[in-house]
Amino acid sequence: MYRSHSCGELRASHINTEVTLAGWVQKSRDKGFMIWVDLRDRYGITQLIFDEERTSKDLMEKAKTLGREFVIQVKGTVIERASKNPNIATGDIEVLVSELTILNEAKLPPFTIEDETDGGEDIRMKYRYLDIRRNPVKNSLIFRHKVSMEVRKYLSDKGFIDVETPYLIKSTPEGARDFLVPSRMNAGQFYALPQSPQTFKQLLMVGGMDKYFQIVKCFRDEDLRADRQPEFTQIDCEMAFVEQEDILEIFEGMTRHLLKEINGVDVDKFPRMQYDDAMRLYGNDKPDIRFGMQFGELNEVAQHKDFKVFNDAELVVGIAVPGAASYTRKEIDALIDWVKRPQVGALGMVYVKCNEDGSYKSSVDKFYDQEDLAKWAETTGAKAGDLICILSGNTSKVRAQLSALRMELAERLGLRKPNEFAPLWVVDFPLLELDEETGHYHAMHHPFTSPKPGQLELLDTNPGAIKANAYDLVLNGNEIGGGSIRIHDKETQAIMFKHLGFTPEEAKAQFGFLMDAFEYGAPPHGGLAFGLDRLVAILGGQETIRDFIAFPKNNSGRDVMIDAPATIDEEQLTELSIKLHIQKEA
Amino acid sequence: MYRSHSCGELRASHINTEVTLAGWVQKSRDKGFMIWVDLRDRYGITQLIFDEERTSKDLMEKAKTLGREFVIQVKGTVIERASKNPNIATGDIEVLVSELTILNEAKLPPFTIEDETDGGEDIRMKYRYLDIRRNPVKNSLIFRHKVSMEVRKYLSDKGFIDVETPYLIKSTPEGARDFLVPSRMNAGQFYALPQSPQTFKQLLMVGGMDKYFQIVKCFRDEDLRADRQPEFTQIDCEMAFVEQEDILEIFEGMTRHLLKEINGVDVDKFPRMQYDDAMRLYGNDKPDIRFGMQFGELNEVAQHKDFKVFNDAELVVGIAVPGAASYTRKEIDALIDWVKRPQVGALGMVYVKCNEDGSYKSSVDKFYDQEDLAKWAETTGAKAGDLICILSGNTSKVRAQLSALRMELAERLGLRKPNEFAPLWVVDFPLLELDEETGHYHAMHHPFTSPKPGQLELLDTNPGAIKANAYDLVLNGNEIGGGSIRIHDKETQAIMFKHLGFTPEEAKAQFGFLMDAFEYGAPPHGGLAFGLDRLVAILGGQETIRDFIAFPKNNSGRDVMIDAPATIDEEQLTELSIKLHIQKEA
Repeated sequence: MYRSHSCGELRASHINTEVTLAGWVQKSRDKGFMIWVDLRDRYGITQLIFDEERTSKDLMEKAKTLGREFVIQVKGTVIERASKNPNIATGDIEVLVSELTILNEAKLPPFTIEDETDGGEDIRMKYRYLDIRRNPVKNSLIFRHKVSMEVRKYLSDKGFIDVETPYLIKSTPEGARDFLVPSRMNAGQFYALPQSPQTFKQLLMVGGMDKYFQIVKCFRDEDLRADRQPEFTQIDCEMAFVEQEDILEIFEGMTRHLLKEINGVDVDKFPRMQYDDAMRLYGNDKPDIRFGMQFGELNEVAQHKDFKVFNDAELVVGIAVPGAASYTRKEIDALIDWVKRPQVGALGMVYVKCNEDGSYKSSVDKFYDQEDLAKWAETTGAKAGDLICILSGNTSKVRAQLSALRMELAERLGLRKPNEFAPLWVVDFPLLELDEETGHYHAMHHPFTSPKPGQLELLDTNPGAIKANAYDLVLNGNEIGGGSIRIHDKETQAIMFKHLGFTPEEAKAQFGFLMDAFEYGAPPHGGLAFGLDRLVAILGGQETIRDFIAFPKNNSGRDVMIDAPATIDEEQLTELSIKLHIQKEA
Repeated sequence: MYRSHSCGELRASHINTEVTLAGWVQKSRDKGFMIWVDLRDRYGITQLIFDEERTSKDLMEKAKTLGREFVIQVKGTVIERASKNPNIATGDIEVLVSELTILNEAKLPPFTIEDETDGGEDIRMKYRYLDIRRNPVKNSLIFRHKVSMEVRKYLSDKGFIDVETPYLIKSTPEGARDFLVPSRMNAGQFYALPQSPQTFKQLLMVGGMDKYFQIVKCFRDEDLRADRQPEFTQIDCEMAFVEQEDILEIFEGMTRHLLKEINGVDVDKFPRMQYDDAMRLYGNDKPDIRFGMQFGELNEVAQHKDFKVFNDAELVVGIAVPGAASYTRKEIDALIDWVKRPQVGALGMVYVKCNEDGSYKSSVDKFYDQEDLAKWAETTGAKAGDLICILSGNTSKVRAQLSALRMELAERLGLRKPNEFAPLWVVDFPLLELDEETGHYHAMHHPFTSPKPGQLELLDTNPGAIKANAYDLVLNGNEIGGGSIRIHDKETQAIMFKHLGFTPEEAKAQFGFLMDAFEYGAPPHGGLAFGLDRLVAILGGQETIRDFIAFPKNNSGRDVMIDAPATIDEEQLTELSIKLHIQKEA
């Protein structure tokens, strides 16, 4: 036994107890005649004391050699602390050390192991095992554990069965790029790592498993945007004999349970919003509804004058920014520069100050009178003291731009409160999405999503108008989950594949097993998957997922700690029947 | 809502209730004026009845069209069953159907969806989604879920944190072959899939996580023996500031908890056996101790006469087979043939019948008298009526052969009772194992296992004699878990790598991050990993793991259902900077 107690455990009630503790030296203060050492483990910090009057000379000498992050074991007596520290749980006591064993020395760590560290992102990733000692990271990982446990408990109590699906599966051309795994035993053939267990969970439904869940790693070989990881974790679920309503109910229940158990927050029934409304009111299919600033479409009230920019635009749309009428010219110019940044891409911005006296001052006063502007204010819901920001142009582009501006301004105005939770179901997603580059439609969720009843006939005439039984769960402006009712008959699935550009042969080669399965008694079914990394980060009140992942990869997909990926032996390549074939940059 | 109740839910108390059920047609019996349909879902079977006198003609006609495995929804009234079926939970009632919806038709399944199916292994794997509908497979998967949930609950309650470690890691030359994943973003470099999260869990200990667990997929690209899978699941655990005793205590507790919660079995404190004793008494490091038949080493009492076979042997060793003295000459010959099979490899077998009258009859009466044979009986613990089977030769070979014979005979004698549980700790494993082919020593557990204190100095003189702080948990003759106390200082680790044949450069390239970590304050730590697939199978009273895996692969590593691995597009290869290079068979 290395210890009788943890470093977070001792209280005044333990005074006079003989204890053995083990942990890391957080810091030590040497006053010559007295040495205090903060001993740290996962559970807390306990102050150790070495004191000339009560500690042997040898022990005093030994205590002086202790450096930061040394691993030590001490025996001693719990005593009352002279000056109590109300900030830590063990602040009433200290341990007068009678025996000290250095279990392992430590070099000076490359950054401070404190809540606020002096280490940058790169060095912290390289020495992630030291970073994990810091409370913010350690607590994030423990928080994640609690969320996972609650998810499993909730779903298991509801009759869901945790079924492990395979990781070595088959590559499919649909969706993102697969990570591939050459097979040694089947030369020239490859496994793929799953982007999700989609087809397997559907097969489990065909297999009568009725309710399935799994917390499972998924893999996508995409160029990494900030805060994306090549491997990520899904809470993956599927149910048979259900309609959309049944699924929303279960997973609303699960999310509410998490908010209650993990965050201690009670939330009302989740509002629901149609995809089309989300796009119209927030320019976004994952609106943050913790605050207002809904879009007001201004075409009707802005396209009747000589302002060509607006008249030529497909959409003129604005938001009222609360209290921002007081922005200076300089501040507004900065805002205009912000929307013109390439990441946002607007060509310009029109603004209207709603003065406290009820008058309006706009950047387009040349074209519009007070009466016009009053209508704009009405449409955007602007009140005296607000600033209306207006963008115009191609509908989908301008919505995205104004949505970005809305989020930026909300952030600046402190409206995105990390401890406020505003869940929202977005429903009635389109089945298909036009790829503007290729002119082809592809599946907005995935090719297994079922269209709403009776809408399949629009495939030939107006594919973009078909709505799907597909839904997303949005929390604080982040998509945390999404799913759909699936197709469960071979004919519909064949039609979908055809319209997504698969030849019958391709469909059979890739998904023949699923279409076969649909012929042997497939029940109606549907499901949902949550992104665990993001869900945990948001419940934890954070925007970035990295600290909630023990060993994340950087934006080049590298693990800088273990230095992977890496080159391999020629022999390994030969065994796998492959050769390197690196093409020179042009 | 597709259903008001499941097919396993209705009881006599529901009589006269209007219900909606959905499920699969298990079978239907058509008596012309009356049709009974067994409707099945995950939860059970409910009998439906269509009756000329009470059912409309149209509905009767529709009911006649139902085939096996059709997916249907029915509305109807729960009524008392004329002839009750005490074998099923819903046997008191049936549902008089008033409305029938065919949700999906089904082709005739390629094998019967019954507990005892007519389908062979191959066809069941190809249509695994149909196989899963069968109770034995379905219940095995649900059983696995229960075990996983209990494991997580137990460990979490004990303060273990579930931390997800990465799947895309680095290839290491040690141990089995890695599955590799070419990196697109880092041309010419590869990730490897983890054979276990060994180094990551150790780094979590360096990171102060204190107690870690994870139920995690691991990957080994080995030629598959029967009942091995290229991807398998581990319950992976690690603890800091512990000695071997602490670890055995926690995981003995966990295993006892599972036996109690899952099997309803109370077991005593697990016995412990030294590796050397296990080899001596059972010829095996994972002895099945549900029955006796311990080895008796006979060198002393058998090498004093003119029987050259024994005199030349390194080891003469026998077991007493209870009640087998009555075996006929033919039965004994068959046994001798059995040990001579290439899979066992013995050259012959000597036997002694211990007659009921106290006399002995052996196959070597020419060389040994009754007094000699009496000593053999004493050494092997044979009683009147037993048969002593004796093998001789090279110690390690003959132990393996006799162990195989012991297990075979126990099986035949019905001594390996599936519902009896005999756990056993095997401790004090050797640190190193001699590879007889290469003459080199390699790590018996893995290169991170710590030698027993003070034994490292034997590395140069007698490496095979070094014992490790390594232990296996054995259940009913299967290794279900194993682990060790780890090395936690850089020097010892460097010595180990050197003796395992790594150059300092290789050690640094492969495991530099771990050795670096050991310099920044690594605590003493150790852990254990359970093989979940096998653990679940054994708790479920089965010998094979395949039915406890939803979608297993065959012995060529293929998933015959989805037909993976498969060829991929040229374009995918190019993106990964690799080319096929299939070598012709010589």
